[in-house]
Amino acid sequence: MDVHEVRAAVDTVLDDFFTAKGIAAGQSELRGLTEMLRTFTAEGKRLRPLLCAVGWRAVGGAGDRDALLYVAACLELFHSFALIHDDVMDRSATRRGRPTVHRAFAERHPATAAPGRCERFGENAAILLGDLALVWSDELLLAGDMTRSQALAVMPLVAEMRTELMLGQYLDLRATGEMTADVEATLQVNRFKTAKYTIERPLHIGAALAGADEGAMDAFSRYALPLGEAFQLRDDLLGVYGDPQVTGKSRLDDLREGKRTTLLALALRAADPRQAARLRALVGQPDLDEEGGEAIRSVLAATGARQAVERMIEDRREQALRALEASPFTPEAIRVLADIAVTATVRNS
Amino acid sequence: MDVHEVRAAVDTVLDDFFTAKGIAAGQSELRGLTEMLRTFTAEGKRLRPLLCAVGWRAVGGAGDRDALLYVAACLELFHSFALIHDDVMDRSATRRGRPTVHRAFAERHPATAAPGRCERFGENAAILLGDLALVWSDELLLAGDMTRSQALAVMPLVAEMRTELMLGQYLDLRATGEMTADVEATLQVNRFKTAKYTIERPLHIGAALAGADEGAMDAFSRYALPLGEAFQLRDDLLGVYGDPQVTGKSRLDDLREGKRTTLLALALRAADPRQAARLRALVGQPDLDEEGGEAIRSVLAATGARQAVERMIEDRREQALRALEASPFTPEAIRVLADIAVTATVRNS
Repeated sequence: MDVHEVRAAVDTVLDDFFTAKGIAAGQSELRGLTEMLRTFTAEGKRLRPLLCAVGWRAVGGAGDRDALLYVAACLELFHSFALIHDDVMDRSATRRGRPTVHRAFAERHPATAAPGRCERFGENAAILLGDLALVWSDELLLAGDMTRSQALAVMPLVAEMRTELMLGQYLDLRATGEMTADVEATLQVNRFKTAKYTIERPLHIGAALAGADEGAMDAFSRYALPLGEAFQLRDDLLGVYGDPQVTGKSRLDDLREGKRTTLLALALRAADPRQAARLRALVGQPDLDEEGGEAIRSVLAATGARQAVERMIEDRREQALRALEASPFTPEAIRVLADIAVTATVRNS
Repeated sequence: MDVHEVRAAVDTVLDDFFTAKGIAAGQSELRGLTEMLRTFTAEGKRLRPLLCAVGWRAVGGAGDRDALLYVAACLELFHSFALIHDDVMDRSATRRGRPTVHRAFAERHPATAAPGRCERFGENAAILLGDLALVWSDELLLAGDMTRSQALAVMPLVAEMRTELMLGQYLDLRATGEMTADVEATLQVNRFKTAKYTIERPLHIGAALAGADEGAMDAFSRYALPLGEAFQLRDDLLGVYGDPQVTGKSRLDDLREGKRTTLLALALRAADPRQAARLRALVGQPDLDEEGGEAIRSVLAATGARQAVERMIEDRREQALRALEASPFTPEAIRVLADIAVTATVRNS
C-alpha cells in the first residue's frame, strides 16, 4: 500500500479519461470545458481516492486493481463537482490558491456586456461545469468494469454518499447567516458534510469493493466519524487562523459568509453580552476587513473557543486511534490509517 | 402502445421512488426536499419517457417492461434536474404556471435576514435540489435491473445525452446577451439543447434497450433531428407570442434575458438600420415592459421573421414525416411518431 503509487495510478486514470473526452469532443467549446476540469481536478489532495484504496486493502483487497482505481478516480471527480458548486454557492473568490471556477469563467467572458453580466456568466458556467463533473464521475464509476456482486455492494454506498452530501450542504445552507450557540447543530452538519462524505464513505466504498462484511464496515465507521469531525474542526480553525499562502484561501471568507462553525457556536455560547454583540455585529458582514477579523479572533481567544476546538480535535483523534486498535484490519492498514488520522488533524492546509 | 398507460406506469415508478426516499430519509429536511422534487416532477409533460417507450416499441420491444419504465422515469427526473438548474441560470420567475424552485425556496427562507439573503438562499438551495435530482435520476437508471447487454447499449447513450445537454446549455450561455444575425449558430445550440436531448436520445435509449441495430438508430435520427429543431422553434415562438395562461410562463422572459433564438437572428438579419437599432436597444433589457415587448413583436412581423420561423417549422415537420415513411418501424409506431410530430410542432404550451 504505497500512498504515492495510489495517487499516481489515480492520476493516470483521470488523465486518460480527460484525454479521451477531449478527443471525442469534436467541438472546441467542449474541449475547453474538458481542459478546465482536468486542471481543476489535477490540484486535488486525493484524500478520498486514497481512503478508498486503504479501505480496499484493509479488508484484504488484492489482485486486479482496475475497478478500484476507477472508483477512486470517480470519487475525486465527484469531489471536483462538489467544490465547484460549493464555491458558487459561497461566492468564494479563491480555491487552492487560484481564482475559483466561476471567477475564472467571469474573467474570460466573451462579451463586453452589461454590468453584472460577467459575474452571472461565470456563476452559470460554473454550475454547468460542476454538472458535467458529476455526470462524468458517473461514467468513471461504470468504466472500471466491476463484477455484478461488486456493483451490488458499491452502488448503494455511492448513492448514499451523494445524498448525504446534498443533505449536509442543504443543512449548512439553511443555517448560514444566523449565528448560533447550538454546538450540536453545527456538529450534525459536520457529520453529513465532512465526516461521512470525506472519510467514512470512501473507506466503505473501497472495502465494499473487496467484499467486506458488516463488522468491518462498522469498524471503519468507528474510526471515520470522529476523525471526520476532527478534520472539519481543523478546517474551521484554518478558515479563521490559517496562512492564506498555505491554505490557498482568504481567512476572512468563512467569517464574511457567516459560516456556522462549531468554533463560532462555542464562542457565542461562552460569550458575555458585550462579546456576543460584537460577534453578531461582525460575523456575516460581506465587507468585513482584516481589523474586523482580528476583533472576532480576540473574542474567540477570550471565550476559550479556539482552545476548546483544539481539545475537541484531540479527543476525536484519540477516539479514532483507539477504534483502530480494536479493529480487524491488517497491521499495515492500521499503520496507514493512523498516519492519516494525524495528518488530517494537524495539517496547516 | 397506449400513451396514457405509459404515462401512468412511469408516474407510478416515480411516486414509489419518492415514497421510498421519504421513508428512508430519517431526517425531516431530506423528506422536505423529497416532496419538493415529487411535486415538481409530477407536473412534467412526460415527453421524454413517452419517446423512450415509443423507441422501444418501434423496434419490436416486448415482454417485461420493468427496465424500460425505470429508464423512462430516469429521463423525467433528469429533466427535472435540467429545468431546475436552467431556471436558476436564467433567473426565471415562473415555470409550469408556478414559482420556479429557487423562488419557492426564497419565499420560505427561515431567517429574516439581510437583503438579498433570501434570493441567494433560494438560488443555492435550487442548485442543490437540482444536484439531488441528477444523482437520484442515476439511481432510477440502475434500479430497473437491466441485463448486461442492455446496460452496455444504454449507458453510453445516457452518458452522451447528458454531455450533449451540458454542452448545449454552455453554448447557449456563451451566446446569451449578444444579439446575433447568425442563424446557423442559433440552430446549432438548438440541436444540442433540444433536438438531441429532447427527441433523438430518448428514442435511441428506448430502442437500445430493445436491442435496436444501427440502421434503426439512424432512422430515429432522421426523424428526430428535424422534429427536435421544429419543437424548439415552436418554443421560441411561444416564448414571445404564447398565452402566459396556457404556457405557464411570461412572454417577456426570453426577451428580457436576451435569449439568442433563431427568431431574433432572422429578424436582425432582415432588419433595416432603424429596426436593427430598435432590436438592439430593447432585447436583453432586464426591465423590458409589455410596451417594449410589443415594439419587438412589430419588428419581428415587419421583417417577416415570425412567418419565416413558421415555415421552418413546417419544413422540418414534413422532413420528419418523410423520414418516418422510409423507416423500418412498425406501422403502429409510425402512427404514434407521426402524431407526436404534429403535437410537438403545433402545440400552444
